Amino acid sequence: MKKLLVASLLTLAVPAMADTAPARLSAETLATAAQLRERALAGSGAYDVVESLTTEVGPRMAGTEADARAVAWAVKKFGSMGFDAVRTEPVRFPVWRRGHERAEVVSPFPQPLHLVALGRSVGTGGAPIEAEVVEFATLKDLENAPEGTLIGKIAYVSNRMERFRDGSGYGPAVAARGRGASSAARHGAVAYLLRSIGTDNDRLAHTGMMSYAEDIPKIPAAALTNPDADILSNMLRRGKPVTVRLDIDAGIGEEYESANVIAEVRGREKPEEIVLLGAHLDSWDLGTGAIDDAAGVAITMRAAALIAALPLRPRRTIRVVAFANEEQGLIGGRAYAAAHGDSVTQHILAAESDFGAGRIYAFATSEPPDAARPVIEQIAQALAPLGIEYTPGKGGAGPDLIPMAQRGMAWAWLAQDGTDYFDYHHTHNDTLDKIEPAALDQNVAAYAVFAWMVAESDVDFGSAVKQ
Amino acid sequence: MKKLLVASLLTLAVPAMADTAPARLSAETLATAAQLRERALAGSGAYDVVESLTTEVGPRMAGTEADARAVAWAVKKFGSMGFDAVRTEPVRFPVWRRGHERAEVVSPFPQPLHLVALGRSVGTGGAPIEAEVVEFATLKDLENAPEGTLIGKIAYVSNRMERFRDGSGYGPAVAARGRGASSAARHGAVAYLLRSIGTDNDRLAHTGMMSYAEDIPKIPAAALTNPDADILSNMLRRGKPVTVRLDIDAGIGEEYESANVIAEVRGREKPEEIVLLGAHLDSWDLGTGAIDDAAGVAITMRAAALIAALPLRPRRTIRVVAFANEEQGLIGGRAYAAAHGDSVTQHILAAESDFGAGRIYAFATSEPPDAARPVIEQIAQALAPLGIEYTPGKGGAGPDLIPMAQRGMAWAWLAQDGTDYFDYHHTHNDTLDKIEPAALDQNVAAYAVFAWMVAESDVDFGSAVKQ
Repeated sequence: MKKLLVASLLTLAVPAMADTAPARLSAETLATAAQLRERALAGSGAYDVVESLTTEVGPRMAGTEADARAVAWAVKKFGSMGFDAVRTEPVRFPVWRRGHERAEVVSPFPQPLHLVALGRSVGTGGAPIEAEVVEFATLKDLENAPEGTLIGKIAYVSNRMERFRDGSGYGPAVAARGRGASSAARHGAVAYLLRSIGTDNDRLAHTGMMSYAEDIPKIPAAALTNPDADILSNMLRRGKPVTVRLDIDAGIGEEYESANVIAEVRGREKPEEIVLLGAHLDSWDLGTGAIDDAAGVAITMRAAALIAALPLRPRRTIRVVAFANEEQGLIGGRAYAAAHGDSVTQHILAAESDFGAGRIYAFATSEPPDAARPVIEQIAQALAPLGIEYTPGKGGAGPDLIPMAQRGMAWAWLAQDGTDYFDYHHTHNDTLDKIEPAALDQNVAAYAVFAWMVAESDVDFGSAVKQ
Repeated sequence: MKKLLVASLLTLAVPAMADTAPARLSAETLATAAQLRERALAGSGAYDVVESLTTEVGPRMAGTEADARAVAWAVKKFGSMGFDAVRTEPVRFPVWRRGHERAEVVSPFPQPLHLVALGRSVGTGGAPIEAEVVEFATLKDLENAPEGTLIGKIAYVSNRMERFRDGSGYGPAVAARGRGASSAARHGAVAYLLRSIGTDNDRLAHTGMMSYAEDIPKIPAAALTNPDADILSNMLRRGKPVTVRLDIDAGIGEEYESANVIAEVRGREKPEEIVLLGAHLDSWDLGTGAIDDAAGVAITMRAAALIAALPLRPRRTIRVVAFANEEQGLIGGRAYAAAHGDSVTQHILAAESDFGAGRIYAFATSEPPDAARPVIEQIAQALAPLGIEYTPGKGGAGPDLIPMAQRGMAWAWLAQDGTDYFDYHHTHNDTLDKIEPAALDQNVAAYAVFAWMVAESDVDFGSAVKQ
């Protein structure tokens, strides 16, 4: 009830604001945007931020002791960069613990298999499971398997993710990770394996979230590296039964409190109006989370810090959020929405950097009011020298922004080149060396230009409470 | 004494043979060479051989149970391909056992480090070692460290191998692997770490042989992945002491008997004269040994098998040897030389394939007698359509051939493109997917052409007992 009332009031407020908004940004504002762009390209400092987080904290899976060190790191790092305010907001979740994972083919061709347990998976119950493997080309094939055909077996889905610049191979492939285990268990399987959701041929498996359907037995779920999936499929192709031993120690433990770390450059005229930049602070436990998502933290942090270093604050507030526990279900993003969902319309426009460290090639926003189009065109023009194309109608909200976007927050999309992203995503290989400093600078330039221009504008970009 | 006598007799025999040798190969022989080349390029079957060995045996480190399975595989595989004789010769060595290896930075920035023990390394003695790390840019810097400066410390050499097509970055870098541990121990170090000898940025460490100097304490030695070496160096660059905990279980165990597997296409006129093709059957334990050296086994096996499928046997015998335990000190090659060193001059010319699965780009031989030059030119011409350049004066004997070459056996060099070889060499990443079937076919074409022409010729290529 309270929520609806607030929503109505805010909805009413928007047109009033838009009426008085200047249609276009001034030449001075554009000149400052160009300065920000050039400063970032000349060396944004973002690479050093990634180096710092990956070296001084390293892997920082949600709920581990490194989670707390990462939060402390972020508070300190924001604090050193001229922000007007830095604070944390609590984020709570049950901890998932990875103990170990081991697998080997027992027969007919004994050899080890390299895999990792999927995030939130259960273990094998303190002792190894030994069972015959049944391969399915796709998740759909598994779902359509005849009733009871997998009793006592290990189900294995072997389809391979395709490589695209925009990462669009991920969506079709990742369902096998998310819900494959329960599909397998529904047919009586005792464990579930899949080919890693990744585009590489490295012997490093890709972890990532899975979830269990209710009222279905929870069975352990793990991803084989692409080369190991090849080995297993090549064995199975010979037509003889293949038996695998699987030993996984993993499971859900205690409740943990982490934090979203929030830093602001306060608006000089409308401090209550927020341009939100996001990224996530947590990583998986395997790599050092350089591309996922120290890069995003560094890009948004340094973009806002460049604006904080200007002689004049922008009209509106720029808020940077380093979200907690994105990896295990957008927990930080949900906590943010729970805390700030009532102020959707104060969130003028939001963008998240969570797709690695490749160059930005496209820009778009959620459907804007007509009054915002001239400013969006100006932003697109200011981004164009960075090799960024304006592609209205494309894109979407970054993961941690989804809970707010679902409530009606307007979003912008600064699309990074993700051609190589899924070579490293959620693997041990997500390390500093995968990042090109100049590409990171280009990202900072884009975010700084974008945030400055939105914050200096006075138009409404379409945030409105969804009824 | 006996050896010298035999040697003298054989040396005398060579000119007699050369005198009657036809200067050049016939047009018919060249036509057959061209046929072999085209057959191999149309599909040599080598990829299937690599697939078979890596799938059905997998990792086959010398002295493991998979060593015996690999020998049985090779005997059976040769046996299925029309060779005239297949046999084994014993190869004995003490087994090196890898238990486990774990490392982590304890302070100031706790995070795991990924590494592998070097081959033949000792362990940490049943309990972890915890010590401060001292970095050296090069092995030479470690060797020149002031007396006693490493007492109780972990020495760490961080230089990085360079990438070249011919793999020439390996030699300068690998000394740090071979003798770094004893250099460190000489200065009082308790353990030795080095940056992997590899050109990749994958979080997969490169193992490989090391050896201990006599009368120096044996300390554990392990290679960090390139990204982990970056992490450690970045921490050390901050100037604070960095403490690492190292837990390695490894060591030398029982004596083991493996075997060189030898298959022959018997010469129709001079069966006692041998064209030797070699590769090694063993691999390290981490990958499936696809490029090192299932590829070489497949290339030489299929090249000789194509010749065995001709209607006529060549004049001379073609002998293919799948050597045992190359990785831990050319043990199979030494055993072969111990068994056959007295018949160096019967080994007309020898070539080994042990540099991965890249295309062959160059051909050369050890310094030939003048009488052999026309035939070598003909071979070079027959190889030219494969994109292979004749580069006299370059190259060397393959590793397993060194013990025989040191005794005077003539060798040929079929140089493979090794640009990517050290990305995968001695890592978990040495798997089937790293091999391009067409490149393997090109290798088989070259080896078949080469072996056929040498075996069909009657000239001496310079094998002579070294005094």
